[in-house]
Amino acid sequence: MKNWAGQVKAIGVIHSPFQQATGTPIQTRAAEGVEGTVEVFPEFVAGLQDLEGFERIWLLYWFDRASQDGNTLRVCPYLDTEHPRGVFATRAPARPNPIGISPVRLLEVVGNVLRVSEVDILDGTPLLDIKPYVSHFDSFQVERLGWLQDAGDWRKAADGRFERK
Amino acid sequence: MKNWAGQVKAIGVIHSPFQQATGTPIQTRAAEGVEGTVEVFPEFVAGLQDLEGFERIWLLYWFDRASQDGNTLRVCPYLDTEHPRGVFATRAPARPNPIGISPVRLLEVVGNVLRVSEVDILDGTPLLDIKPYVSHFDSFQVERLGWLQDAGDWRKAADGRFERK
Repeated sequence: MKNWAGQVKAIGVIHSPFQQATGTPIQTRAAEGVEGTVEVFPEFVAGLQDLEGFERIWLLYWFDRASQDGNTLRVCPYLDTEHPRGVFATRAPARPNPIGISPVRLLEVVGNVLRVSEVDILDGTPLLDIKPYVSHFDSFQVERLGWLQDAGDWRKAADGRFERK
Repeated sequence: MKNWAGQVKAIGVIHSPFQQATGTPIQTRAAEGVEGTVEVFPEFVAGLQDLEGFERIWLLYWFDRASQDGNTLRVCPYLDTEHPRGVFATRAPARPNPIGISPVRLLEVVGNVLRVSEVDILDGTPLLDIKPYVSHFDSFQVERLGWLQDAGDWRKAADGRFERK
């Protein structure tokens, strides 16, 4: 297991208004009204059947423009400007396996293209997976929020700190 | 982008009471009281700093024992025994990129081991990532649930239909 590795492939590409990290919304909650499209490659289109009935979907994708300088394990996340934190206690894009998850709103499915809103993802990002968002599975009210509890006002937009140099 | 591929590596391994799909809870909601441990490999332990303050965490992992017969794009999911569905409209483990996400409860962090509960994951599963669960980012009440709305009683435990032969 120690040296286990697997290969992921793009099943599509995400299109959004954001060309760089600076100014990109931090999480979908900060992206109200921001529309984008998800282009699914033709060979995967059969997998989209029945998707349109869902109001919200998870997009899993690859943070292809985040810095990947080996294994950065302590980062200063967007919502905390002072302290470095363990990367697994943050949602920072620079991580050992740079996979992002975003629960976006699904507006429409037209052929191989999904129209979505609340998009917090860079334009051109490789898409890895789509899953339906199901409140019974995914929605929890949690009380303890660790360092985020003391993080003061939560910023709404990212900056360039995790961009690949 | 069409031929984009990336490599993921195990940052640890998940331990649970489940040796096979049959009988494994379907989603963490069906796994109340089920405890497990997440062993993080020593070289990634620095990334666990500050994690213990969070009540719930996302585990991202590789469905290493799901069938991977090329690209199965239509499946009959656990919660629907009749109709094949587009795989992206399901949470089935057999998918083009077999990545699972589970919001488990974090009980304790002891060195490189996380004690967790509500575990719906097979024993020995390769761990890819850990992220804090944040209700403001991850919790949504959705109305439209597609085919799941008509799926009748939701089963609580999986069977062997997606196991690798």
